[in-house]
Amino acid sequence: MDNIRSPFRGIIKDFEGRKACYKQDWEGGFRSGIRILAPTMYIFFASALPVIAFGEQLSRETEGTLSTVETLTSTAICGIIHSILGGQPLLILGVAEPTVIMYGYLFSFIKNREDLGRELFLAWAGWVCIWTALMLFLLAIFNACTIIIRFTRIAGELFGMLICVLFIQEAIKGLVSEFDVPHGEDTNSEKNQFQWLYTNGLLAIIFSFGLLFTALRSRRARSWRYGTGGLRSFIADYGVPLMVLVWTALSFSLPSKVPIGVPRRLVTPLFWEPASLYHWTVIKDLGRVPPVYIFAAIIPAVMIAGLYFFDHSVASQMAQQKEFNLKNPPAYHWDIFVLGVMVLLCGLIGLPPSNGVLPQSPMHTKSLAVLKRQLIRKKMLRSAKECMKHQASHSEIYGKMQAVFIEMDKAPTTISVAKDLKDLKDAVMRGASEGVEAKSNFDPEKHIDAHLPVRVNEQRLSNLMQSLLVGLTLCAIPVIRLIPTSVLWGYFAYMAIDSLPGNQFWERMLLLFVTPSRRYKVLEGVHASFVESVPFKFMAIFTLFQFAYLLLCFGITWIPVAGILFPLPFFLLISIREHLLPKLFQPQHLYELDAAEYEEIAGAPHRNLSLSFKEKETSSQSSELEVCDAEILDELTTNRGEIKLRNSNFTEERHFQVYPDDHSDQHE
Amino acid sequence: MDNIRSPFRGIIKDFEGRKACYKQDWEGGFRSGIRILAPTMYIFFASALPVIAFGEQLSRETEGTLSTVETLTSTAICGIIHSILGGQPLLILGVAEPTVIMYGYLFSFIKNREDLGRELFLAWAGWVCIWTALMLFLLAIFNACTIIIRFTRIAGELFGMLICVLFIQEAIKGLVSEFDVPHGEDTNSEKNQFQWLYTNGLLAIIFSFGLLFTALRSRRARSWRYGTGGLRSFIADYGVPLMVLVWTALSFSLPSKVPIGVPRRLVTPLFWEPASLYHWTVIKDLGRVPPVYIFAAIIPAVMIAGLYFFDHSVASQMAQQKEFNLKNPPAYHWDIFVLGVMVLLCGLIGLPPSNGVLPQSPMHTKSLAVLKRQLIRKKMLRSAKECMKHQASHSEIYGKMQAVFIEMDKAPTTISVAKDLKDLKDAVMRGASEGVEAKSNFDPEKHIDAHLPVRVNEQRLSNLMQSLLVGLTLCAIPVIRLIPTSVLWGYFAYMAIDSLPGNQFWERMLLLFVTPSRRYKVLEGVHASFVESVPFKFMAIFTLFQFAYLLLCFGITWIPVAGILFPLPFFLLISIREHLLPKLFQPQHLYELDAAEYEEIAGAPHRNLSLSFKEKETSSQSSELEVCDAEILDELTTNRGEIKLRNSNFTEERHFQVYPDDHSDQHE
Repeated sequence: MDNIRSPFRGIIKDFEGRKACYKQDWEGGFRSGIRILAPTMYIFFASALPVIAFGEQLSRETEGTLSTVETLTSTAICGIIHSILGGQPLLILGVAEPTVIMYGYLFSFIKNREDLGRELFLAWAGWVCIWTALMLFLLAIFNACTIIIRFTRIAGELFGMLICVLFIQEAIKGLVSEFDVPHGEDTNSEKNQFQWLYTNGLLAIIFSFGLLFTALRSRRARSWRYGTGGLRSFIADYGVPLMVLVWTALSFSLPSKVPIGVPRRLVTPLFWEPASLYHWTVIKDLGRVPPVYIFAAIIPAVMIAGLYFFDHSVASQMAQQKEFNLKNPPAYHWDIFVLGVMVLLCGLIGLPPSNGVLPQSPMHTKSLAVLKRQLIRKKMLRSAKECMKHQASHSEIYGKMQAVFIEMDKAPTTISVAKDLKDLKDAVMRGASEGVEAKSNFDPEKHIDAHLPVRVNEQRLSNLMQSLLVGLTLCAIPVIRLIPTSVLWGYFAYMAIDSLPGNQFWERMLLLFVTPSRRYKVLEGVHASFVESVPFKFMAIFTLFQFAYLLLCFGITWIPVAGILFPLPFFLLISIREHLLPKLFQPQHLYELDAAEYEEIAGAPHRNLSLSFKEKETSSQSSELEVCDAEILDELTTNRGEIKLRNSNFTEERHFQVYPDDHSDQHE
Repeated sequence: MDNIRSPFRGIIKDFEGRKACYKQDWEGGFRSGIRILAPTMYIFFASALPVIAFGEQLSRETEGTLSTVETLTSTAICGIIHSILGGQPLLILGVAEPTVIMYGYLFSFIKNREDLGRELFLAWAGWVCIWTALMLFLLAIFNACTIIIRFTRIAGELFGMLICVLFIQEAIKGLVSEFDVPHGEDTNSEKNQFQWLYTNGLLAIIFSFGLLFTALRSRRARSWRYGTGGLRSFIADYGVPLMVLVWTALSFSLPSKVPIGVPRRLVTPLFWEPASLYHWTVIKDLGRVPPVYIFAAIIPAVMIAGLYFFDHSVASQMAQQKEFNLKNPPAYHWDIFVLGVMVLLCGLIGLPPSNGVLPQSPMHTKSLAVLKRQLIRKKMLRSAKECMKHQASHSEIYGKMQAVFIEMDKAPTTISVAKDLKDLKDAVMRGASEGVEAKSNFDPEKHIDAHLPVRVNEQRLSNLMQSLLVGLTLCAIPVIRLIPTSVLWGYFAYMAIDSLPGNQFWERMLLLFVTPSRRYKVLEGVHASFVESVPFKFMAIFTLFQFAYLLLCFGITWIPVAGILFPLPFFLLISIREHLLPKLFQPQHLYELDAAEYEEIAGAPHRNLSLSFKEKETSSQSSELEVCDAEILDELTTNRGEIKLRNSNFTEERHFQVYPDDHSDQHE
C-alpha cells in the first residue's frame, strides 16, 4: 500500500543514484582500453546467436511477417537505448523466447479474422505494445519492483524449465519439418521430391545432433586437460558460435549432384528489401484497427507486461548478485520505466520488443569481473614482489597491496575495502606470526589468488558496443542465410540442455531416479544443501508438485488461442507459494527447497594440491599454477549465471566422512 | 638352452597339473547351478559380436570366400575343443583381428596368380596352417613359453594400439564404402543410383555414430547415478549387443519409399548353402598346390605362429593375473600344443583358426570372480549374523567366517587361506580390542565387503557353454543378416575406443598434450605410478619412440604383399627392449614405464562415506549400501582386463596433499 501512496519514489531514487555514477560509467569503460573488447565480443556472440535462432522461430510462427531482421533490429535498438539511458548497464537486452511465443499467439489469433487479417497484424501488435508500455509505466511509477522478492526460486525455475521444454519442442518440430515440404513451396521442384526431402531430413539429423554434441563439448573446454589455457578459454567462450561456423562450412562440402536447397538454409529477407521495410510505417495503420480489437489487446498486454516485469527484474537481479560486490546502486524501477519506453517504440515501428535476458546478463557481469580481477591481480602481485625484494615485513607488504587495491577500486569509502580485504589480510599476517620458516615460504600469489575479493568493471561501454555489433550483424544477413536451419534446431536443443545444470528443480527431478542405496554418489559430488537437510519424502512431494505444475503450464501453451494466458499460472504460483505451500511444508524445508540463492556443498578442494610431478622438473620453468580467473568464476556460477554459495562447515564435515580414521579399507 | 635340452618338460608338467583338477573343473561348474548362466551369457555376447564383425571384414578382404559363417564355426569348434582338452579353461578363444589381417594378405597375394588362383586359396591357407601348427608344436615342446616374460608392456601395448588403429581404419573404410556401389554389384539398379547411394551413406553415418555413442555410454552404466542396480548392471554387461539390436530395429523404421537394399545389411551365406559347404573338402585340394607355394607358405606361417604364440600366451596370462588368486595351475605349454592341434584342424577344413582373445579372457575370469564372491559373501554374512545374535566374541565370529570361507574355497591347504584372510581377521579383531562401544558398532558386512579376498569359480562349463552358444549362432544367421553393415562400422570404432583406457602408451601420448601448469589435473585423477616417479622429459622421449615405432608398424601394413611381415617389428622390439633401451634410459625409469602390471595411484576413497541423507530416513528401510560386486571388480580392472594395483602409500601421501592444514582457502 505504501508503494501506491508514494508514486515515482523508486524511479527518482534510481535516477539520482545512477546519475551520480553516470560519468564514471563511461570513463571506466574507456580506461580499460582495448581489453574491454574481450567481454564485448563474448557477450555479443552469446546474445546474437539466440536472437538469430528466435528470429527463425518467429518467422515460422508468423509465416514470414517477422524474421531475423526484426529480432536483430529490436535487440540492437533496445540495447543501444538501454546502454545509454538505462539504469543498470550490466543488464543485457534481447528478443527472448517469451516474446516469440506471445507474437506467435497474436499472429495465430489474427490471421484468419476477416476484419483484421495478416496485413493489420503489426498494427494490432502495436496496440498490444502500447497497452503493455502503459502498464509497465504504472508498475514503475508505483514502485512495483519492491515485490520482486516474492518471485522465489520455485517460480523462476519453473519458468526456466518451461522455456527449456519449449526449446526442445522447437528443436523436435524443426527437425521433423525437415522431412516435409516447407510451407508454401512448390511440391514439384526437384528438391521437394521424396528422395531429396529424405536426404534433407537425414542431413538435418546429422547437422543438428552434430552441433548439439560439439557445442556441449566445447562449452566445457575450460576444464579440459589438454591444450594451452588460452586455447581452452577461447573454445569455452566462443566454441558455440565456432561450431555453428564449422557445421555451416561442412554443409557446403556436399557432392555437387545434391540439388540446391538441400540442406535447407535460413530464409530471411535482407533488411533493405521491401519485406523488411514495410513495417517501419506501421504507425499509420494503428487507426485502421477496429476499436473492439484495440481493447481486446489489453488481455495479451497484461500477460506480456507481467512477463516482462518478471523477466527484466530477475535478469537484472542475477546480474547484480551480492557476490559480485557491485559498487554502483541498482535501478529496478527506472529500468522498468525505460523498458516501457522501448516497448512503446518497438510497437510503433513494428518490431518485437526486447527485454532483459538470461543467462547473458549475469554472464556479462562475470566477464567484466574476470577483466577487473586480472588487472588488480597483476598490479598487486608486482607491488608485493617489489616489497619482498626489500625484505619488507608482512604488514608492510599487506599495506602496499591494500594501497594498490584501493587505487584500482575507486570506491567512495575505504570501509568496505577493509571488510572485503579482511581474508587476504588475515592470510598475509598469519604468515608473519608463524615465524621465520613460514616467512621464507611466503607466496603472495597464492594468497592473492585465494583471497582477492571480486570486483566488477562497471561501465556502459561493453553493453553499447555489443548492441552496436548486433546492429552491424544486420549487414551480415547474406552470411547468416548460409546457416542450415537444422544447425539452428541443434542450437535450440543445446540451449535447452545447457540451461539445466544449476536448475534445482531439474536436479531434484533427477534425484527421484536415484535409488536410495545410490544417493551417496550425490553426496560425493557437488550438491545443493537441501540434499542433506530436507528428508527425501518432502523433497519428492515438493518436486512432484512442481512437475505437475510444469505439465499444467506446458499444457496451456498447446491450447490454440487461450494459450496466450500461459503466464497466468506463474502469477498464480506466487500466491500458492505464499499461502498454500507453508501449510504443507515445514518452514525450514521450504526455505531450503525454495532458497533464494544456490547454496551448495563444495566438493573436496583440490586447488592447493602440491605437485610432485612438477617439482621434479627444472626449477627454471615458471612455477605458476595455471588456474585462470575465468575458470574460478565459472566454477562459482551455474549455467544460469547464478552464484553458488559454498558452505564451508559442510566441507569440513565431509572431510571427515570421506577420510575416516580407518585407512585400512583402502587395501582391499 | 636349458629349454631345448629338456623337450616336453613343460607340456608334461602342465598336463599333470591340470589332470589333477580336471574332475573338479567340471564339478565346480555344475555345482554353481543356474547361476553359471550369468558369466556364460556375458562372455557369449562379448565374444560373438566381434566374431561377426571380423567375419564381415574377412568377407570383404577375401571377396566373399570366407565370411561370418566361417569365423563363427571356427570360434565354436576351437572353443569346444579348448574347453574340453585345453589347459586353462578361463582362456576364451575366437577368430581375432590378426588372423583376419593375415588371411587378407594371403588372399591378396594369391588371387591374381595364374598357377594358384582363388579356387586354391583355402588349400594354400591350409598349407600355411600346417606349417603354423608345426611351429607351434615345436614351441610347445621346447618350452618356449618361458620366454613370455620378455614380452613386456611396451610390445603388448604397441600391438594393442596397432589393432586399435586398424579398427579405426576399418570403421572409416567401411563408412566411406557406404557411399559407393558395392564391389561387383549392378550399377544400374535403383538402390545404386546417386541419390540412394547418398542416402545410404548418410544413414550409415547416423547408424555408426549412433551405435558408437550409445555403446560407449552404456558401457559405463554401472557407475550411473540413476536406475536400480540390476538395471545398471544389465546395461553395463549387455548394453553393446542391446544397442546393436536397437539400431538394427531402428534401421527398419525407414519409410517404405526407400528402396530395398538401403541401408545395406550384412551379406553372408547360410551355413547350409553351397557357398559355405565347399570348404569342408579343402583337404583333397591340398595336393594340387604347386610345391613352390607349399614352401612359400612357411613365411606367413612364421608370422602367424609368432603372433599366435604371443597373443595366446598374453591372453592366458591376463586371465590368470595373480590378483585373481587362482588355485589351479597354469598350462601355457600345453595350451600352445592344443592351439597347434586346432590350427591344423582349421587349416584342413578351410576355416580361419582361432586363438586366445583379449579382453574377453580376463573378462571371463572377472565375471566368474563376481559369481564366486556373491556366493561366499552371502554365506559368510549369514554365519556372522548368526553368531552376533548369540553375543559371540569377535574371535568366535571370525572363526565361523573362516570356516565358511574354507568350506566354499575347497583349497587343498589352509595356509593360503590364513594369508588371504589376514586383512579380514585384523579388521574383525581390531573391533574387539577397541572396547564395548566399538563392539556395538561392529558391522560384519562392512568388513566382509572391504576385506573378502578374490576367489574365482574355476571351471570348464561356462567356456564350453559359451562356445556351444556361438555354434548355435550359426542357426541365427538369417537374423544376423538383418544387421546394417554401418552398425558394424560403428562397432569397430567402439572396439577401438573402448580398448584405449588402461593402455599406458595411449595415456602417455595424451599426457604429452597436457600443458605443464595443468598436470595437477592428472595427479588429481586416477593415474599410473610413472606419472609421479619418472621425469616428464624421459617419459616424453620414451613415448615418442614408441609412437614412431607404431607409425612404422602401421606403415608396413600398407605395403601390398610384404605387409604380411607386419609382426616382424614386434619380434624385433623384444631385442630392442633388452639391448638398446637400457642404454638410453635409467633402469628404474624403464621399470616404471614398462611395468608388467598396471600400477595405479588410487584416488580419494569414497566407499565408507557415511550417509547423512540416508540417516534421516526411517530406519526400517534397509541400510544396505549398494555397491555391487561387479562394480568393485570393474573399478579394479582396465578395459583391457588388466588388474590395477592400488598403491596405498601414495594414497596416504596424497591425502595430505589434498587436505593441507590450511582450510581457509576454501572460503574464497
